[in-house]
Amino acid sequence: MKSHTERITLTVPQRMGFVNITDRVEDAVAKSCIREGLCLVNAMHITASVFINDNESGLHEDYKRWLEKLAPYDPSPETYHHNRTGEDNGDAHHKRQIMGREVVVAVTEGRLDFGPWEQIFYGEFDGRRPKRILIKIIGE
Amino acid sequence: MKSHTERITLTVPQRMGFVNITDRVEDAVAKSCIREGLCLVNAMHITASVFINDNESGLHEDYKRWLEKLAPYDPSPETYHHNRTGEDNGDAHHKRQIMGREVVVAVTEGRLDFGPWEQIFYGEFDGRRPKRILIKIIGE
Amino acid sequence: MKSHTERITLTVPQRMGFVNITDRVEDAVAKSCIREGLCLVNAMHITASVFINDNESGLHEDYKRWLEKLAPYDPSPETYHHNRTGEDNGDAHHKRQIMGREVVVAVTEGRLDFGPWEQIFYGEFDGRRPKRILIKIIGE
Repeated sequence: MKSHTERITLTVPQRMGFVNITDRVEDAVAKSCIREGLCLVNAMHITASVFINDNESGLHEDYKRWLEKLAPYDPSPETYHHNRTGEDNGDAHHKRQIMGREVVVAVTEGRLDFGPWEQIFYGEFDGRRPKRILIKIIGE
Repeated sequence: MKSHTERITLTVPQRMGFVNITDRVEDAVAKSCIREGLCLVNAMHITASVFINDNESGLHEDYKRWLEKLAPYDPSPETYHHNRTGEDNGDAHHKRQIMGREVVVAVTEGRLDFGPWEQIFYGEFDGRRPKRILIKIIGE
Repeated sequence: MKSHTERITLTVPQRMGFVNITDRVEDAVAKSCIREGLCLVNAMHITASVFINDNESGLHEDYKRWLEKLAPYDPSPETYHHNRTGEDNGDAHHKRQIMGREVVVAVTEGRLDFGPWEQIFYGEFDGRRPKRILIKIIGE
């Protein structure tokens, strides 16, 4: 069995934003020399997500408005008890649960085994500072 | 290490519907001859889900109504900017995020290592055409 | 390839509650003697979740109120058709979909490869009886 571990660091300049990381993950798969296996990609921060969906800017705007409706930003410690800690990111911890922490993708014949529109995104809900993403591939 | 890859194609005749695929996944595990490992099952389309829950029709009706409330179908490009592309499935991309893209199930002694009520479902949110599901098992 | 399988049983005395199981998972990784691999942790029950987020009690209170708003407890079979079966836990099957069934964590140099605040929680939505969690680690 082979394994390959890689970390990506990126900074989203806004509080909320989505970054297409598909090419970075494909590069990691190529470097791993793994032909058949599984590839885990996860946010290492708990106010961020990794998810798979469409590379379409209208949809990303829709996601932002929808997440803002389901878990609105509100620094008040009445709305989010989490903000009693002095933080203002209670909403971000909720948004991340909707979009998920991680994806697991099959690696087949040395490539991400994807349907026609699948793309991997990093979803940031408390940006403006460097965050890390983990890529771990195991297989043979 | 062994690996086994399989694709299922199915067509849900309605816009939204759930299909029990547990037997199909169990067959794939049997064919793989893997005794200990991990089994990934994911939708290859971005308006569909694979999830684990109860095989109970009342619950599935509840899920449909709930998802419709959280992300209602609306072809208008005002409600979903995604529909400016000419598509009408903006809602489906949201429903899929709630229900998830994939499941990872342990394989133990050659079988899916399940609790008493766990069953694997394909969740369709933009049906009426053939869609694919990927099964990838790795282990020994 | 090595594999290690472990089951945790626990009882949450309330209907809804969160239990930090990070130490239990770290112990399983240590016992497995796996240095590089993947670790799956999943609820074996369909009214429960395993998720990764912050070990902060205010946030957990926020999650409870939020989930209660998104999928309120209501034993009525009108609100949840699932409750026509005689059960009263329709809401719990919905809450579990928001929080997720499982997490997959990288194992690197013999340890859970975590960001600074990542902790693994069992989320119970229909407690007051023993429930099981599965840990499966594969790698080398």
